[in-house]
Amino acid sequence: MKEIEPYEHKVQYYETDQMGIVHHSNYIRWFEEARSYVLEKIGFGYKEMEERGIISPVLAVNAEYKTMTRYSDIVVIKTKVTSYNGIKLMLSYEVSDKETGKIRCTGESKHCFLNTEGRPISLKRSFPEVHNLFSERFHIE
Amino acid sequence: MKEIEPYEHKVQYYETDQMGIVHHSNYIRWFEEARSYVLEKIGFGYKEMEERGIISPVLAVNAEYKTMTRYSDIVVIKTKVTSYNGIKLMLSYEVSDKETGKIRCTGESKHCFLNTEGRPISLKRSFPEVHNLFSERFHIE
Amino acid sequence: MKEIEPYEHKVQYYETDQMGIVHHSNYIRWFEEARSYVLEKIGFGYKEMEERGIISPVLAVNAEYKTMTRYSDIVVIKTKVTSYNGIKLMLSYEVSDKETGKIRCTGESKHCFLNTEGRPISLKRSFPEVHNLFSERFHIE
Amino acid sequence: MKEIEPYEHKVQYYETDQMGIVHHSNYIRWFEEARSYVLEKIGFGYKEMEERGIISPVLAVNAEYKTMTRYSDIVVIKTKVTSYNGIKLMLSYEVSDKETGKIRCTGESKHCFLNTEGRPISLKRSFPEVHNLFSERFHIE
Repeated sequence: MKEIEPYEHKVQYYETDQMGIVHHSNYIRWFEEARSYVLEKIGFGYKEMEERGIISPVLAVNAEYKTMTRYSDIVVIKTKVTSYNGIKLMLSYEVSDKETGKIRCTGESKHCFLNTEGRPISLKRSFPEVHNLFSERFHIE
Repeated sequence: MKEIEPYEHKVQYYETDQMGIVHHSNYIRWFEEARSYVLEKIGFGYKEMEERGIISPVLAVNAEYKTMTRYSDIVVIKTKVTSYNGIKLMLSYEVSDKETGKIRCTGESKHCFLNTEGRPISLKRSFPEVHNLFSERFHIE
Repeated sequence: MKEIEPYEHKVQYYETDQMGIVHHSNYIRWFEEARSYVLEKIGFGYKEMEERGIISPVLAVNAEYKTMTRYSDIVVIKTKVTSYNGIKLMLSYEVSDKETGKIRCTGESKHCFLNTEGRPISLKRSFPEVHNLFSERFHIE
Repeated sequence: MKEIEPYEHKVQYYETDQMGIVHHSNYIRWFEEARSYVLEKIGFGYKEMEERGIISPVLAVNAEYKTMTRYSDIVVIKTKVTSYNGIKLMLSYEVSDKETGKIRCTGESKHCFLNTEGRPISLKRSFPEVHNLFSERFHIE
């Protein structure tokens, strides 16, 4: 993937819980923010996808929480494609503190592509131009 | 409105914030839970509405926070229709602690009805049987 | 209030609901984002407050939803102090679409200040330097 | 673990997204609801834990999304302890549709226990009575 500046998120008060830290479910939402940002940058965001009749649900997600994030911290999220075959897409995320660089959380998500009837599609077959866009950008050495 | 048992909600950990209390935005969601529950009970929940091609967005909402709600508390939410004219619907909510009866929050919400094209409709004209259901149930003395 | 650039928020996928628009409860969270941003800018954010042993709960909130906001829109939020007397603070918000300038939502929130024992305090008496900061910045003609 | 009735959750409107299904991040919150429910049932809920000065952050979480959950569905969540050694606790979750029994999502979460200074503790050493409670209940064949 050509260089896209990593996504930044500023922690909001409503994202904290009574432990005084960010509630763990929010990192899953931040992964989505970062993914959404990257897809938009390469020209095929969720909006563009859905306008072409493609929806892309999440098949799986995982996160490992390393250190705690607190209100008003800024986190930097690096997103990488770890696998793409035209049918399934896997991404990995690294959330770190902007100031200290300390890693807060790492995780992954897995996605497929469905048409408007909810049937799985191969981007390669149904949307070759999108597939080429992905393949080009998401070349994995 | 004939007697419908008030809605109950148990406070979840993810609803708290670093003040150690429920984040204020969640009461707005609880109003929706209670509204959703009441509409379903009278036979015209959001699901039934949307199946008939009616969507009912929120036009306005307000809340007054009286006392604090904490993790694992159970709150009881009483919902009343304060006005309904076939075009607009206003509801009021009273959130109280189940154990002590202490009032936690009061609020209101205002709604209209739109067809699938997003144009406002009169339930009275377009869905008289629904209108009658509402009028009957939501008679205000 | 001296000129602070209005707060911007990019709408996330997880903020939408099945109506295809932003769920109304999120505007209440955006008000908090904007408030948090403004307070931090004037040097007395929630973090600074809580470090001095002051918490500032929300006493009331209201919102009027004018037009719909959708995924990937950017909204601009203008925040104004409408009243401040050392004990209570009222703010108003105007959420508009960045691209078209169309107003999406307006609202208000009301706040008090509590010490660590949860008792209401007068910023004027207990934290005169903070009070002066507020009064200076939040002068209302 | 002695028989505890599985936890039930009714899907709320604010939990849906513009795909018309439950947003995937909410399952992570439902895992917490189910965990919270089970821990409370065995007499050592988060409230009791925190009153004794123990906090129990989430170290890792994963979820596999099998089929889609929609607004107003009721899901049943079965929670199992898959590992416990006095220091770390692992739980697994199975979310299924109440009506059809169809599995919606499976997942796991991993937890440790910290004292008020944020240092990891062995429940076995520091809170033997709690450890015994867990060991007894969470016996794994």
